[in-house]
Amino acid sequence: MSSQKLTQRLLVQKYGGTSVGSIERIRAVAQRVKRAREDGYDVVVVASAMAGETNRLLGLGAELSKRPDERELDALVATGEQVSVALLAIALNEVGVPARSFLGHQVRLRTDSAFTKARIKGIDAEVLLSTLREGRVAVVAGFQGIDDQGNVTTLGRGGSDTSAVAIAAALAQYGGKSVPCEIYTDVDGVYTADPNVCPSARKVHRISYEEMLELASLGAKVLQIRSVELAMKYAVPVHVRTSFGDAEGTWVVNEDESLESVVVAGVTSDKNEAKITLRRAPDGPSTNAALFRALADAKISVDMIVQNAGEGGMLDLTFTVSKGDLERAAEVVRAKFPGAEVGVQKDVVKVSIVGLGMRSHAGVAATMFEILGREGITVDAVSTSEIKVSCLIPSKYHELAVRALHDGFGLGA
Amino acid sequence: MSSQKLTQRLLVQKYGGTSVGSIERIRAVAQRVKRAREDGYDVVVVASAMAGETNRLLGLGAELSKRPDERELDALVATGEQVSVALLAIALNEVGVPARSFLGHQVRLRTDSAFTKARIKGIDAEVLLSTLREGRVAVVAGFQGIDDQGNVTTLGRGGSDTSAVAIAAALAQYGGKSVPCEIYTDVDGVYTADPNVCPSARKVHRISYEEMLELASLGAKVLQIRSVELAMKYAVPVHVRTSFGDAEGTWVVNEDESLESVVVAGVTSDKNEAKITLRRAPDGPSTNAALFRALADAKISVDMIVQNAGEGGMLDLTFTVSKGDLERAAEVVRAKFPGAEVGVQKDVVKVSIVGLGMRSHAGVAATMFEILGREGITVDAVSTSEIKVSCLIPSKYHELAVRALHDGFGLGA
Repeated sequence: MSSQKLTQRLLVQKYGGTSVGSIERIRAVAQRVKRAREDGYDVVVVASAMAGETNRLLGLGAELSKRPDERELDALVATGEQVSVALLAIALNEVGVPARSFLGHQVRLRTDSAFTKARIKGIDAEVLLSTLREGRVAVVAGFQGIDDQGNVTTLGRGGSDTSAVAIAAALAQYGGKSVPCEIYTDVDGVYTADPNVCPSARKVHRISYEEMLELASLGAKVLQIRSVELAMKYAVPVHVRTSFGDAEGTWVVNEDESLESVVVAGVTSDKNEAKITLRRAPDGPSTNAALFRALADAKISVDMIVQNAGEGGMLDLTFTVSKGDLERAAEVVRAKFPGAEVGVQKDVVKVSIVGLGMRSHAGVAATMFEILGREGITVDAVSTSEIKVSCLIPSKYHELAVRALHDGFGLGA
Repeated sequence: MSSQKLTQRLLVQKYGGTSVGSIERIRAVAQRVKRAREDGYDVVVVASAMAGETNRLLGLGAELSKRPDERELDALVATGEQVSVALLAIALNEVGVPARSFLGHQVRLRTDSAFTKARIKGIDAEVLLSTLREGRVAVVAGFQGIDDQGNVTTLGRGGSDTSAVAIAAALAQYGGKSVPCEIYTDVDGVYTADPNVCPSARKVHRISYEEMLELASLGAKVLQIRSVELAMKYAVPVHVRTSFGDAEGTWVVNEDESLESVVVAGVTSDKNEAKITLRRAPDGPSTNAALFRALADAKISVDMIVQNAGEGGMLDLTFTVSKGDLERAAEVVRAKFPGAEVGVQKDVVKVSIVGLGMRSHAGVAATMFEILGREGITVDAVSTSEIKVSCLIPSKYHELAVRALHDGFGLGA
């Protein structure tokens, strides 16, 4: 390792497909990277494929085979990021910022061999650090790595977020202090609710990893969920922001660094759930397990599960699956319990409140039910976790419920 | 190294950009590779980028910079071959032929660091051999390698031919016997003359490396010249043929294997030459050298040089440059010899006869002049090498000269 020290602060910036979607946009990214350098940062840039490119490449593969070999698919789609980083390095050199592109094998971003959905095992920060020491920007292809045999692998959709966080974590381990990771995307941050549903929604300035995980899995879809898990594990401060302006976005940080000690951080909803209700099924010690094993064998994911003590040794059960799986799921249930009542319902929506503050504040669920009740909204099912309460309600109340909860918990203030 | 032996014969097949220019064409290539396997060959395939792709990528780079960084250009254009080999491997797997794609870094095709025109230093045949031993076809990205620092390099236009020959040479060193290299292109072989000019031209079945080198540099443009040099050095038998049919093409082989011991193997011509004549320039010991140094400094390549003993200590000189350089070359000459007569002429063409037999047959040049003279064709300049005689003649005689020489040397028989 070189004895030369980095004199400046380290920063990782990740640009998504829209941000590098055209030659014009790539030039704008080069200007933004240049400004970060002028602000005193040593910058590692992670780039996704140009918008549309990954789908174009997958389309070529699909023309040749209904089930293309996954190793070859990974080699194919990895070219998308390779094109982006080479172009971005050219653009940076053109505006006087010395830059060098790096592919998965060049930064030894090692993964397992699960093609199309590989998981990162490690990364060699030294090649990046020596590039920074030479006064260069390192531009790293996101989404791709290599396995132990040198095969090209990819990390799954949105994997560039994970690449960026992993690089920030690796750089931090070298320097002994945390390295921030800016994620540039086409939204300008995380909101307290969907602004399309709730006009009083406002941008959250700081949010904890845990809250972000619950929001992401509930459909906020700003960051790939694995990137948030990784950021939490290595305490990487993540700044989600837009590349179409200079506004601050949302910082995703450790709980103790999250400024706002609010009870509820946000309201989210999921319209893709459907409900199955089973009544008067004969119950036994393993009935429940047998049912959900049969659903799992049919590759059907189950989300909410609500089980009541039924009358006289009978099982009463409600659960939700994604709308696309509803018919198949109902068949599985009917085959399992020929004599029971099986009801299905598609016009439902799950609304959830998420917040670390729930852990120390009693009565949050009660407040949620009161707010919904005041609006005349019936609740079909409830499930709770440590930092989340979800209610399944009729779809027609979707917007009303989100707005009422948002205002009721004081998020619009 | 595995103790398992390859039971079959080895074959390298290289497919150019037109041959993999569409999904349909890639499917046809997969069928051809399948047939070679059925014929008992273990096959390594080398593929170029899909036709047009390299230019598309260079166009993106050119939009960002007038002089894009060459390291980044190589990373950019290398994606073209990566897409081809992944798609071809998918197509092969789809038709039941197990296949695996390989990039430059995966077969450790090592080069120097001369980006955009790197030269091959070595290649690791072991990874290819172990792939073949597993019963798989190895599909290798042409045109690309890595240097000692792991940077992606490319071999220059047509470099996939060189990749293919280098792989055949490396495989041969392992097995101790030569491995043939089939080059699939959009022409079906090497002809005794351009069929568009000379209707009686016929396909040559076998030609020596030396003759091929002279033909290629004279404009036959069937194979990248470096691939022929490499094939000669390692005695790789090269079979140039079309991917649009099953006809045998032309074998490029060692002199002692070339079946036909003809005096002249082919007639070729180059319309891109222009002539500069200098008369009555003051001569001295280094006049000549000074002139050609000045032209070299202006990056002007000179082809033929004919120097006569001028009258009374004066220099009489004729030389040719490419048509595009004519004006600049004339300026250089006029600046060097302000008092001399400088004539320029664009309507000239160089016709050449090429053949190993010339070395042992006296009077070949004389026969050439007789044939041309019989047709009333004036010769402006002559240059000769061991296996080639070139005459500069007025353009209007182009077709007539090629046909007369072709028939005069008995090539149409």
